[in-house]
Amino acid sequence: MVPQWIIERKRDGGAVPEADLRAFVAAYAAGELPDYQMAAFAMAVFFQGMAFEETVVLTDAMMRSGDVLDWSDLERPTVDKHSTGGIGDKISIPLAPLVAAAGAAVPMISGRGLGITGGTLDKLESIPGYDTQLSNAAFRRVLETVGCSIIGQTARLAPADKKLYALRDVTGTVPSIPLISASIMSKKLAEGADALALDVKCGAGAFMKRREDAQTLAETLVAIGRGMGRRVSALLTAMDQPLGRTVGNALEIAESIAVLKGQGPADVVELVVALGGEMLVLAGLCAERGEGMRVIRQKLDSGEGLETFARMVAAHGGDAGLVENPGRMKAAGACLDVTADRAGHVAGVDADGIGRVVLLLGGGRRRSADAIDHAVGVDALVKAGERVEAGQPLMRLHARSLDEAQGVLAAARAAVAIADAAPAPAPLILGYLQG
Amino acid sequence: MVPQWIIERKRDGGAVPEADLRAFVAAYAAGELPDYQMAAFAMAVFFQGMAFEETVVLTDAMMRSGDVLDWSDLERPTVDKHSTGGIGDKISIPLAPLVAAAGAAVPMISGRGLGITGGTLDKLESIPGYDTQLSNAAFRRVLETVGCSIIGQTARLAPADKKLYALRDVTGTVPSIPLISASIMSKKLAEGADALALDVKCGAGAFMKRREDAQTLAETLVAIGRGMGRRVSALLTAMDQPLGRTVGNALEIAESIAVLKGQGPADVVELVVALGGEMLVLAGLCAERGEGMRVIRQKLDSGEGLETFARMVAAHGGDAGLVENPGRMKAAGACLDVTADRAGHVAGVDADGIGRVVLLLGGGRRRSADAIDHAVGVDALVKAGERVEAGQPLMRLHARSLDEAQGVLAAARAAVAIADAAPAPAPLILGYLQG
Repeated sequence: MVPQWIIERKRDGGAVPEADLRAFVAAYAAGELPDYQMAAFAMAVFFQGMAFEETVVLTDAMMRSGDVLDWSDLERPTVDKHSTGGIGDKISIPLAPLVAAAGAAVPMISGRGLGITGGTLDKLESIPGYDTQLSNAAFRRVLETVGCSIIGQTARLAPADKKLYALRDVTGTVPSIPLISASIMSKKLAEGADALALDVKCGAGAFMKRREDAQTLAETLVAIGRGMGRRVSALLTAMDQPLGRTVGNALEIAESIAVLKGQGPADVVELVVALGGEMLVLAGLCAERGEGMRVIRQKLDSGEGLETFARMVAAHGGDAGLVENPGRMKAAGACLDVTADRAGHVAGVDADGIGRVVLLLGGGRRRSADAIDHAVGVDALVKAGERVEAGQPLMRLHARSLDEAQGVLAAARAAVAIADAAPAPAPLILGYLQG
Repeated sequence: MVPQWIIERKRDGGAVPEADLRAFVAAYAAGELPDYQMAAFAMAVFFQGMAFEETVVLTDAMMRSGDVLDWSDLERPTVDKHSTGGIGDKISIPLAPLVAAAGAAVPMISGRGLGITGGTLDKLESIPGYDTQLSNAAFRRVLETVGCSIIGQTARLAPADKKLYALRDVTGTVPSIPLISASIMSKKLAEGADALALDVKCGAGAFMKRREDAQTLAETLVAIGRGMGRRVSALLTAMDQPLGRTVGNALEIAESIAVLKGQGPADVVELVVALGGEMLVLAGLCAERGEGMRVIRQKLDSGEGLETFARMVAAHGGDAGLVENPGRMKAAGACLDVTADRAGHVAGVDADGIGRVVLLLGGGRRRSADAIDHAVGVDALVKAGERVEAGQPLMRLHARSLDEAQGVLAAARAAVAIADAAPAPAPLILGYLQG
């Protein structure tokens, strides 16, 4: 294996033979292939793409660079969910307990946010005491007893991806569908679930702005999963305005609890039910999506999802009492309403704009070493199509101080567009892709 | 300056602003920008190219990463020559003394061969005692007294290029016209000559296989030189068969001496006269090329070129006596004729094939740390168009042992194509580009 020949082959548009690609990734994971050769290779992939078979080999090689978990001894079928990410995306938090309550096991390994608002892990760490760093044995015990567990990525899970992801971030090689696909799937498949539902976001607030790119990514992810012997399907969903009415770590936990109590915003509930239904079909617990969705709704209405969530929190050492009283999470120092300067209909809420506001308030990270403030964010956010009057609140800012809230006021107001006419209703779920 | 933004800008086809590009190169030269970011940038340049103004800035920034020599106090006008490289290219060795004999100063800084037969520096080191590592002061003294000096690149000359060149070699980012151009010109312009003649090779044995690529490279090099206030012109010359009848370090020195004695092969003499004539025009010593060529021929016929060469060798501590007796250089252990297996005309001599034979004999380097055998190589090589009879020698191999010579016999024979009909005569000089 001569690394520069592999780089040159990719650069010139050829497919890299399987043995060479595996050796290239293995050498990189072992620290024998320098970052500069991987960076040049990644940039060549950005321009030349990868054949589907190459993407599968890359995914498999990165997956096998570390531990691959095995749940075959669990009594329940295992199923996981992954979202490509969006502002206000707290779906995993109500979803995992609902799917567990319906009889599946959900071994979910989540990430932190970077360059944006917090990730699922940051949100969960708003819960006093919640430990996201379980040992493999403890993770297994929670899965057996509760049915779902959400933890952070360990160093032993797809370490080649961890290294490559950090490199891509600083070498302009992030937006490449084969690299994104291999990154997502190597991590998710190393978690060892039998099945995986993907939520591929599309729109102004998503990584994939254009429908055709999101479609291509979804097709690639599903095909990789199938190519590696897992059941995978994908939902294509809109990410133009934030999901739900809250953005910010503790505020999104509070909203997730509201969802599980049957008091959640319509878009979050719709997506939880759709993804949950899909997961139950993938897990073999329901014959088709409609039935799966009915089961999830029933677990929502019965309170079993809420109860499972509370048990998961307790099993992770967290304060399960906040299910009854979310006010037990740390609150921000100051609140300030952002009001409409005119009457009309909400034409749109700029997800990225709201994300930046929360980042500025301290609720996200610019660099991985940055500390995060779990209490800050926005809630009571208006949704596209809603009628507003002049002076009526568009959202409430939760900040460390009134000064900090006032500092982002203009940006927050600019993120909500108000027009005379109501916009045409836009669907949240744009399409399904079966594996 | 955020390095990944610069990489992304280039990746997406934009031009990098001058201040950013300068800061990027300066940080790389200072060891503050890691190789992996430069590797990703170089690959993005491979795909997206560079605007001409960007290439000039890159060249200037790399040139200024180290010393820039200044010859303004010399009495003679300074002029240099650079070739993009080819098999059997010993042109610099007879050329520099001839141009010096005509009144110019030729401060020439040359390289070693890599992945191919030896470079000019390796050839000169075949001369017992010749020191290629002069101090700046000694280099200046030789220029003042002899008029020409050929030395090796010092660590202080365009160090950013030195670093980038080594990186490109292992990251598949060599064949990019802006990067090649900036590499050549940053080094050559740092040498400080007022004027520069370029020999851009084109053909099967050259880096640029296609005429249009060689033309583009030549235009870019000339334009960069002009953009940086130097007089630069280029010759486009054929590199299909090796130049001259010898390939190998000491053998090429012997052939260079033969050229200076008026006994050289026609193609080498033609190119020396053409480039020398061009250099005298660039140096302001002749009004036009024809006059320059006549002066070079006269310096050849008068023996002044040979005498200047001997003085240069002596000034570098070398054995000038070999001008009279080239046999004083170390000879190879064994010689073996490669004979024609049929009669006919030489249809072509594969320059790369001959280069590989010499590499296999030990006359070149695969890696920069490899030792080189100055004595090995081939001589008495036939030229395209010549008539040969079955059993007649096509070339003579000079090897460390008869075994080693026999080991390359088949490859050597395969490098000479023999056909019934003589090939159409092909010109050596394909075109001129004025600065």
